Amino acid sequence: MRVEDSQFRDGAHSSDTDAAALRADARHNRQRIIDASRELFSSHGLDVPMKVIARRADVGMATLYRRFPTRQDLLAEVFAEQFAQCAAIVEAAVANPDPWQGLRSGVEGLAAMQAADHGFSAAFVRDLPTASMIEQKLQEGMRGFEELIERAKASGQLRTDFTFEDLVLVLMANSGAVAHAKEAAAAASKRLVAFLLESFHTAAVEPSALPPAIEAGLSGVVFPDPDQ
Amino acid sequence: MRVEDSQFRDGAHSSDTDAAALRADARHNRQRIIDASRELFSSHGLDVPMKVIARRADVGMATLYRRFPTRQDLLAEVFAEQFAQCAAIVEAAVANPDPWQGLRSGVEGLAAMQAADHGFSAAFVRDLPTASMIEQKLQEGMRGFEELIERAKASGQLRTDFTFEDLVLVLMANSGAVAHAKEAAAAASKRLVAFLLESFHTAAVEPSALPPAIEAGLSGVVFPDPDQ
Repeated sequence: MRVEDSQFRDGAHSSDTDAAALRADARHNRQRIIDASRELFSSHGLDVPMKVIARRADVGMATLYRRFPTRQDLLAEVFAEQFAQCAAIVEAAVANPDPWQGLRSGVEGLAAMQAADHGFSAAFVRDLPTASMIEQKLQEGMRGFEELIERAKASGQLRTDFTFEDLVLVLMANSGAVAHAKEAAAAASKRLVAFLLESFHTAAVEPSALPPAIEAGLSGVVFPDPDQ
Repeated sequence: MRVEDSQFRDGAHSSDTDAAALRADARHNRQRIIDASRELFSSHGLDVPMKVIARRADVGMATLYRRFPTRQDLLAEVFAEQFAQCAAIVEAAVANPDPWQGLRSGVEGLAAMQAADHGFSAAFVRDLPTASMIEQKLQEGMRGFEELIERAKASGQLRTDFTFEDLVLVLMANSGAVAHAKEAAAAASKRLVAFLLESFHTAAVEPSALPPAIEAGLSGVVFPDPDQ
């Protein structure tokens, strides 16, 4: 029985057992909506129609809108864990006493998230909409990175012509590497980000070792093996 | 009238005029197949079914297979111009007397092609199949780049831990930047490639000026403008 139906039942039949069943129903529906949304946002982008989500979750539109009055409420819930993880990465980066190491850990952290959770990162890079709750988290994240960039420039560790847009460019490039490298996504992402960071810092920074070269697999995606 | 029908007409009715009409028909069909394929390969990838191509081109399967016996024949024809352009880029790069400048121009040339023709580059990076004619061109291109890499290492201009897979990584990353940056694709691609090249060369190379920072537009894709 759908929750929206059960709410119109005759109150005289209600009991503690009914109320508990109702709460269980509601929780169940809520979880189904979240699961369906996560799947659809990842595969079809963030603007998938609400009725498609309701159909996939097998709930009525009334139930969907009662649980999540706006798409933004749904996005915030579905990606709550990822937003929290982003926030933690930025927070730790800003707290680092070495501005370059802070910026570096922030970039590496976001890139690793992209490599680990391609659905979120694709949706995120592609078409994240303005949304009160999400916007607030994003603004905090942006302010954190702007602070990191400023501090690393002030300390002479970051090239002065680096801009916030270059950070966005890293995320876009990383999302391409992750999408195309398939099984080698994590290795490709690490090596790409290391190359980019290498070109962002100044001579004041001790150079870091590059992650290992990608042994095989990458070129097979773009250039088929001539021996096959 | 479709060409495959006209071939079964009674020979007694043939004339020079009929033959000319037949050739015009054949050319027309051929061009329609090429146009439909180009569109479908770009939007749906290289493995779009042959019957979908025939339907879009409004020709019969017999006509399609008579003009292009294999998918590879079709790919070679559809992307002939792009393959020729790639080959010219690699050839010019290899001919450059300065190994670093050669490698650099090769990477910049391919990246610019990706930025200019997203359909080809997406299809190319995503799922280029093994194909005799294409494979041969690719093998030539690969050999050219392998030669460039070796020469730039030998001249002490390229870091010794650079591999051919890293070149593939650049193309993958660039395809992400191009896909996400939309109108700013060319600017984003140029800046990304410049950053990467910056981290590939050794101190023996005179540093080049970085292309201008991306003024606006990029972060609006990933991070919505908080003032809107």
